[in-house]
Amino acid sequence: MKAVYLAAGRVAVRETDIPERKAGQALLRMLVAGVCNTDLELQRGYYGFSGIPGHEFVAEVIQCDNANLTGKRVVGEINLNCNACEFCSAGLGRHCPFRKVLGIVDYPGAFAEYLVLPERNLHEVPQEVLTEQAVFTEPLAAACEVLDQVSMERGERVAVLGDGKLGLLIAQVLNARGLQVVLFGRHETKLTIARRAGIETNGSNERPKAAFRVVVEATGSAAGLAEAVTMTRPRGTVVMKSTIHQTVPLDTAPVIVNEISLVGSRCGRFEPAIDLLSARRVQVAEMVEAEFPLGAAEEGFARAAQRGTLKVLLRNDQ
Amino acid sequence: MKAVYLAAGRVAVRETDIPERKAGQALLRMLVAGVCNTDLELQRGYYGFSGIPGHEFVAEVIQCDNANLTGKRVVGEINLNCNACEFCSAGLGRHCPFRKVLGIVDYPGAFAEYLVLPERNLHEVPQEVLTEQAVFTEPLAAACEVLDQVSMERGERVAVLGDGKLGLLIAQVLNARGLQVVLFGRHETKLTIARRAGIETNGSNERPKAAFRVVVEATGSAAGLAEAVTMTRPRGTVVMKSTIHQTVPLDTAPVIVNEISLVGSRCGRFEPAIDLLSARRVQVAEMVEAEFPLGAAEEGFARAAQRGTLKVLLRNDQ
Repeated sequence: MKAVYLAAGRVAVRETDIPERKAGQALLRMLVAGVCNTDLELQRGYYGFSGIPGHEFVAEVIQCDNANLTGKRVVGEINLNCNACEFCSAGLGRHCPFRKVLGIVDYPGAFAEYLVLPERNLHEVPQEVLTEQAVFTEPLAAACEVLDQVSMERGERVAVLGDGKLGLLIAQVLNARGLQVVLFGRHETKLTIARRAGIETNGSNERPKAAFRVVVEATGSAAGLAEAVTMTRPRGTVVMKSTIHQTVPLDTAPVIVNEISLVGSRCGRFEPAIDLLSARRVQVAEMVEAEFPLGAAEEGFARAAQRGTLKVLLRNDQ
Repeated sequence: MKAVYLAAGRVAVRETDIPERKAGQALLRMLVAGVCNTDLELQRGYYGFSGIPGHEFVAEVIQCDNANLTGKRVVGEINLNCNACEFCSAGLGRHCPFRKVLGIVDYPGAFAEYLVLPERNLHEVPQEVLTEQAVFTEPLAAACEVLDQVSMERGERVAVLGDGKLGLLIAQVLNARGLQVVLFGRHETKLTIARRAGIETNGSNERPKAAFRVVVEATGSAAGLAEAVTMTRPRGTVVMKSTIHQTVPLDTAPVIVNEISLVGSRCGRFEPAIDLLSARRVQVAEMVEAEFPLGAAEEGFARAAQRGTLKVLLRNDQ
């Protein structure tokens, strides 16, 4: 099969064997996959990754133990947990200390014609959700995670800082939950996407001080955290969504004096994300910037790496 | 009256007028005051402070509107809030945006023979609490604040990182609340104080990884936050107690990947602190390193600034 191979910062498409499935696993034919900022970070050498990347995907089930799943369109949770430790028992397999992570940690990813995942990681895609929408399930679940971590009241005014892919998804998720979202960003085309989804935007360079009880930081830049702290009211919460592979300079004094909580936030449950897509409560179609065949993955990665690019998809054309 | 005056990094004792009390205020004669790390930071020029410092004190009420208070020993809350804004209305005057702070922000402090505070800031000291113990009320309240911010279960194993004054108080407060505290520090004399109070200590240079759901960071050093994050389990909480006037380098990746919450924590309510002293559930006597007459404040500050010094008290000998 054709697969994207990443090593020493280089993306190449290679021929390799179709992976073998074991009991409890499903063999999947990838339909569409999304390039995430994490994939670009892997390319830059973070995590010392080499192998097949890719963790946002929609696939068709080719073979598995459960006959009802065969032939179905599925999305898949990316954490391969041990299913035995205390985190797994508490439903927090995403934090299993023994986990592998699809296309990120010690497990071949979705940028290939075929991949293998445990059946229990799979969620069927409802018919009303298009494949090009379902591919947003994983990042949308990461956006929904904010709701699982921080309690907010309907109608409450909250800020999302950063108008990139994740910022746009988070703003839409919070908006769909009935919060009054203000999206702060600097890219008019992206702010326009948010406004079309009914979200208030603010494109000015000035940030209001101590104005929000909850600020979600999704700028992807090292300066974002300090900005978010400034925007947060005493006793408020900053949700940290920007994975940045560098040390962030943090002035702890305002965090302590104003007793602000900084809450790290990563992956989320797939169920609420699929529900939002199914109910058409979030708009993702406009967030696709370009689509490349799997064989042109190198070009796709280059496009995704351009500053300000929205979602780049890879399509399995076999 | 005699008062300590701090300007441009210099501590000097001067003669100045006894402050005038207004309606609603009490004129207090200081009995004993404690030198806090914040006072040393003021001396180093933070907050651009000049004036009379001091915010940990016990005093005798000389004059006030409420006749029942006259002659009583009192401690006093340090935040002078507006009593009208939404924070004040919610009982969070400590976060009033219009507040002045005794001996720290725009209000003369307690290192003087006399001071003035609103009556509503005062708490009577119970007879069974010695003056030299009551002077710990303010930092003890800051230690108690952790309990108001983070919910912990009786018997839960929690870590306190740092065996300085605040670390010792926090460890004792959590211990008194029935938590199983491990105090991590590097000073055998201080760890001994904790052990005598029935607290498990760990003086090794190795820090256990992902071992605690709650870690209270009270090292007072820039390196403490990263250490605390390392010691915290996924989805756990680091309480930030070290006010450090420098930018702290924070690797946000483990905070986000492990979804750790960093909770800034500052002043607390006086009531639980006074209750703990009254019930003798915390031992503070051993934490007094030295006592100086108010007139020798310069010497007292110098002693307090020596590395590893515990509490230095200033006594009003008039």
